[in-house]
Amino acid sequence: MGVRGPAGVVRSSTELGGDPIDLTRTSTPPIPERTCLRIGIIASIAHRTPPRGYGPWEQVASTLAEGLVALGHDVTLFATADSITSARLHAEALHGYEEDPGVDAKVYEGLHIAAAFERAGEFDVISNQFDFLPLTYSRLVSTPVVTTIHGFSSAAILPVYREYDDVGHYVAISDADRHPDLGYEATIHHGIELSGFTYRPDPGEHLLFLGRIHPDKGTHLAIEVARRAGLPLVIAGIVQDKAYFRDLVQPHLGRSGVTYAGPVGPAERDALLGRAVALLHLIGFAEPFGLSVVEALATGTPVIARPLGSMPEIVRHGRTGFLVDDIAGAVDAVGRIGSLSRQDCRDDVDARFTAERMVADYAELFSRIVAGGPSAANRSRRSGTSTTANRTEASLAP
Amino acid sequence: MGVRGPAGVVRSSTELGGDPIDLTRTSTPPIPERTCLRIGIIASIAHRTPPRGYGPWEQVASTLAEGLVALGHDVTLFATADSITSARLHAEALHGYEEDPGVDAKVYEGLHIAAAFERAGEFDVISNQFDFLPLTYSRLVSTPVVTTIHGFSSAAILPVYREYDDVGHYVAISDADRHPDLGYEATIHHGIELSGFTYRPDPGEHLLFLGRIHPDKGTHLAIEVARRAGLPLVIAGIVQDKAYFRDLVQPHLGRSGVTYAGPVGPAERDALLGRAVALLHLIGFAEPFGLSVVEALATGTPVIARPLGSMPEIVRHGRTGFLVDDIAGAVDAVGRIGSLSRQDCRDDVDARFTAERMVADYAELFSRIVAGGPSAANRSRRSGTSTTANRTEASLAP
Repeated sequence: MGVRGPAGVVRSSTELGGDPIDLTRTSTPPIPERTCLRIGIIASIAHRTPPRGYGPWEQVASTLAEGLVALGHDVTLFATADSITSARLHAEALHGYEEDPGVDAKVYEGLHIAAAFERAGEFDVISNQFDFLPLTYSRLVSTPVVTTIHGFSSAAILPVYREYDDVGHYVAISDADRHPDLGYEATIHHGIELSGFTYRPDPGEHLLFLGRIHPDKGTHLAIEVARRAGLPLVIAGIVQDKAYFRDLVQPHLGRSGVTYAGPVGPAERDALLGRAVALLHLIGFAEPFGLSVVEALATGTPVIARPLGSMPEIVRHGRTGFLVDDIAGAVDAVGRIGSLSRQDCRDDVDARFTAERMVADYAELFSRIVAGGPSAANRSRRSGTSTTANRTEASLAP
Repeated sequence: MGVRGPAGVVRSSTELGGDPIDLTRTSTPPIPERTCLRIGIIASIAHRTPPRGYGPWEQVASTLAEGLVALGHDVTLFATADSITSARLHAEALHGYEEDPGVDAKVYEGLHIAAAFERAGEFDVISNQFDFLPLTYSRLVSTPVVTTIHGFSSAAILPVYREYDDVGHYVAISDADRHPDLGYEATIHHGIELSGFTYRPDPGEHLLFLGRIHPDKGTHLAIEVARRAGLPLVIAGIVQDKAYFRDLVQPHLGRSGVTYAGPVGPAERDALLGRAVALLHLIGFAEPFGLSVVEALATGTPVIARPLGSMPEIVRHGRTGFLVDDIAGAVDAVGRIGSLSRQDCRDDVDARFTAERMVADYAELFSRIVAGGPSAANRSRRSGTSTTANRTEASLAP
């Protein structure tokens, strides 16, 4: 996934006067012309798409773009210039703003989002995998915008989602993450490329923590559980909270078998996941989705998680892992991990969390929305205060 | 200025099906129907418009809105809900984000700018007094957008101005602030409401520093000049750089006649300015414009400034102040300040820096741009990288 050069692109839209369909590049037969959609995908530009290491939003945008191209859709990915995709790539920023201090986040977010909307007329639908800011451009175009809400970073961003609820075509990434104030078109769980994760039938000998090192993710709880369970612990991921790492993680490194592998790329990630006894996912917040949880299951490694946010939707308690309330429960779960079948873990991902399933869900949703006719764009705004007694409806392209 | 309620508005546009022209509210005869423009003004939402204290961008937006309403134009001001204006007010944020921690800057900047562009069809022209972000929406509407560039906070924002150079209708606030890469419609110096500044023919006995307390503004140089000149110094303004204030300003307070008045509102500002011997404006950066310099001159107080940025355009060396290179030059200038006529200072503001002149300049520019026909909106973008060989031009409202 995501390693083909941008030249190897399937084009099937006659509206763009493009080349004939390239049948040599992919074994997937193109879908009939009439159901081929012209799709613009707005990725986050914090990182490259797909990300080298951390970057779940970019990962999902990449998986979606590759999958839609494979289905024969005409996909333009708006992402950083160093991104790798088989879709058409449109880039404003050379690199992700988290990866290059020369890229000003506010400046390039604006240019990046504007670029997609300025080309809106070329697309049947825009998939917003970015966050709330593209919504503020969405009423200015008639192309429907489908916004995947990758969780609410804070309650402060809710006013934007509320304001564009009527045109936002929101997708939740778990039922648990649905906000009661908003309307949703669908819940679409993330999916992963199974081929990127090696199934290993035999459990390894270490416990694993994989994720941002941050109190929300419970790195310190994983350390305590491993200590009590008497098993080594490998910690992998970016340090998001430096003080937390320094005070509650670093003092344990090299003692009681606790090691820190740093941020890991795909190959090392696959190996660490597959060679673990269990993934310890003792989160302290309602996580909207947990890609690393699905990835662990894909390698056959069960997950011990707290039952917060999306966890009950992803982990089948007693079958692909255990949902536990506290440290004692987690230690007990480690003791019972041998009762679970690693094959069951893999099979559950195969059934519910593949890229193919995710892409099919999005493709079906996009088709349904496009078939629904013109979007609700240009509807009058509902909020804001105005002293204009007879506010005329905005006619945006007179 | 800015104290009339929003109900007292001149409306003369038949296109909005409005009330008859209200001749009772203002002594300014309304301009003929055909020259009345429907103008949207996007103010900054860091502060209320007009600002209670610091807030030069909001001040200019307010002065412009009031002046255009007085000329009979149909003006909608996009600003915070607590703003005071005789234009129509459209607000998304209750308060300025610098004044209310409950207002998330990114969220409300997006909602605020989007609101103006979603109503673009109601306006003949949009005056962007905000910064670069509105430009990224400007190609999505056909209403021309005239962007006043209130200086470049950093070189990082230049890519946006370059990208929208063809449609941005840029206004420089001084010739000195024109960037060589950009095209401009005009330079329009800021103007102030002369009635808000009392002319005082007799000089006071203190030197004055008025502005953000920051190394750029040379507060520490003003202290040294006052010490050497043997005159008291009053410092007024917000502390923008806390460490600088603590290390280089605070130790001098209460000694050698140096006092700190804090941030000051309009009345205290007027009194401090008018009762000064001179304003010390020993800036260390190319200041795009200096509202406090013009305000000092309006009260009759000459200005001692370094010849950077807009200063040579504002201060007439040897007539309304002195342009000096260093501390010794500034001390020498204080000694010669009595050779200047305070009336000359006032007269120069009356001739060149009134709100009426600024508003007339903008009104003339807006009329010229509107008469020029449809804007260049929807022109194809020039930058960004794309793998689409034959990029089609964006058709934004298919």
